[in-house]
Amino acid sequence: MNKTTETMKDICINLLKNRGVNISDIVDIVYDLQKKYVPDLTREVCEDAIQRVLGKREVQNAILTGIELDVLAEKNMLSEPLQSLISKDNPLYGIDEILVLSICNVYGSIGLTNFGYVDKIKPGIIGKLDKIGKSTNKCHTFMDDIIGAISAAAASSVAHNAEE
Amino acid sequence: MNKTTETMKDICINLLKNRGVNISDIVDIVYDLQKKYVPDLTREVCEDAIQRVLGKREVQNAILTGIELDVLAEKNMLSEPLQSLISKDNPLYGIDEILVLSICNVYGSIGLTNFGYVDKIKPGIIGKLDKIGKSTNKCHTFMDDIIGAISAAAASSVAHNAEE
Amino acid sequence: MNKTTETMKDICINLLKNRGVNISDIVDIVYDLQKKYVPDLTREVCEDAIQRVLGKREVQNAILTGIELDVLAEKNMLSEPLQSLISKDNPLYGIDEILVLSICNVYGSIGLTNFGYVDKIKPGIIGKLDKIGKSTNKCHTFMDDIIGAISAAAASSVAHNAEE
Amino acid sequence: MNKTTETMKDICINLLKNRGVNISDIVDIVYDLQKKYVPDLTREVCEDAIQRVLGKREVQNAILTGIELDVLAEKNMLSEPLQSLISKDNPLYGIDEILVLSICNVYGSIGLTNFGYVDKIKPGIIGKLDKIGKSTNKCHTFMDDIIGAISAAAASSVAHNAEE
Repeated sequence: MNKTTETMKDICINLLKNRGVNISDIVDIVYDLQKKYVPDLTREVCEDAIQRVLGKREVQNAILTGIELDVLAEKNMLSEPLQSLISKDNPLYGIDEILVLSICNVYGSIGLTNFGYVDKIKPGIIGKLDKIGKSTNKCHTFMDDIIGAISAAAASSVAHNAEE
Repeated sequence: MNKTTETMKDICINLLKNRGVNISDIVDIVYDLQKKYVPDLTREVCEDAIQRVLGKREVQNAILTGIELDVLAEKNMLSEPLQSLISKDNPLYGIDEILVLSICNVYGSIGLTNFGYVDKIKPGIIGKLDKIGKSTNKCHTFMDDIIGAISAAAASSVAHNAEE
Repeated sequence: MNKTTETMKDICINLLKNRGVNISDIVDIVYDLQKKYVPDLTREVCEDAIQRVLGKREVQNAILTGIELDVLAEKNMLSEPLQSLISKDNPLYGIDEILVLSICNVYGSIGLTNFGYVDKIKPGIIGKLDKIGKSTNKCHTFMDDIIGAISAAAASSVAHNAEE
Repeated sequence: MNKTTETMKDICINLLKNRGVNISDIVDIVYDLQKKYVPDLTREVCEDAIQRVLGKREVQNAILTGIELDVLAEKNMLSEPLQSLISKDNPLYGIDEILVLSICNVYGSIGLTNFGYVDKIKPGIIGKLDKIGKSTNKCHTFMDDIIGAISAAAASSVAHNAEE
């Protein structure tokens, strides 16, 4: 990883924190996803996988773009009808899922299955983000998918390493 | 739909039946997936959606290709190492998930989320296919993903129609 | 197509026009892409295909989102480092290609090949958008990919109809 | 890369050779694709990128599966209608493009654009494979897309390294 990518990674970790998510919240999800497949799984192994995922340029670009759209929607700074589609998390919008595909796939197609599962059951911080997004004036339309996709990609990385 | 596509659809429905899956088994899954979002959902609406999905050329091509690979693996007719990868449903193989992406996406990105969920919880016939594949000399490496993807795409179609 | 989708389509066509692209510019590209495969191709057939593509919700969502990001970058209203990544059309950004995948794929995987080709040779209005984006303070980072993807999807639709 | 992955890589390189493609044929394509963007590009840099691509499990799985289907089609060992779809390289089949998506994307979304371009202009060995597949009883329905996708992914890897 070169210097730019390293700095971009730090910017992304701070951005996630500002939007209410710590690395340890993501570790919780990855650990729960993989513990039944990897008997001796530790939280350290999960965190390492998350750090690897966050070091990838395509992941960083998706994080920066998705969170920007959430923040602009919160500030009511988008044009209509996009402002309403994003701020109301319209189920037919779908660009949030498209955007995070590039995150899910960094460790192969297993990531996709994990993402679909996490997106449906909304474990831990993802459920909280979803609830806050729906009950306050915070907008988490992209944020919950971003966290789901990072978790899914990190879980895939853990699975690959355990298998090989 | 033209004549070729119509005939291809019949071929696929027969092929699914020969491999142990009736349309009504898929209706069970789609109904369960969508009933909590669409209060007045009927089995007829689910079956219509499944029929629409099965009428698409890209879906038919994926069904024909995936089932062929399962059948060839059962007959021990593939070259190594592919024979072992498919017949043992190796978790790092991943081509089964890739192949059915084209099915999931026929009604947009919601299909992907539904697929990931179904692939993880393995409801109804999908769980049965998975168990038979793992405990007998039947090979369902592609088949369970194909059924999951058809269910997911049909559920997305139901969701879109309910929403619009 | 229901009323909302119809209105969304009009909004998108106007938005494309405001950003410098008429339907007839896209017809030029689709016609050139397909004329060697479909001997009796007319501009009307190409325009019909484009209208079908623009009638799809996933296409409309991608258009609204991509153009919004271009416009915000022009107004210098995005946060850094996203502002620089988009306004300078950084080759490692890649979210523009990801976003328009949902457009390319509305008529199956042929769309992808057409998109890659168009994105590389930049025919007609796409080349103009790219040049203007690089030499003025206009930002067309998403716009050129959006037009490329609409053209590619419409060309796939023309190809499918000619084949079946 | 562990031992299994290393062995799988050798199997794939031999398989490509048996089907008429040497690494140096792929170097030709990657070099031509990237020389105008990377002034001091060497063939060694291109070959390193190709070796990295071939070391990835998802790439190996796609190679093994695609070539197996080509070979089975040549031997007339597939069921109808799949036998005809693959042996005649039916333009509406599309599973060849789907399968190689997992190859294209190993170095991010730029791979997709490169693939679409290569798939259309068919440079070097890809054009030869296509011509042989269409004029003899050899079947290269998957093979030309596999080589196109490996070239596209390797070109993306070269581009990323040059940029960062």
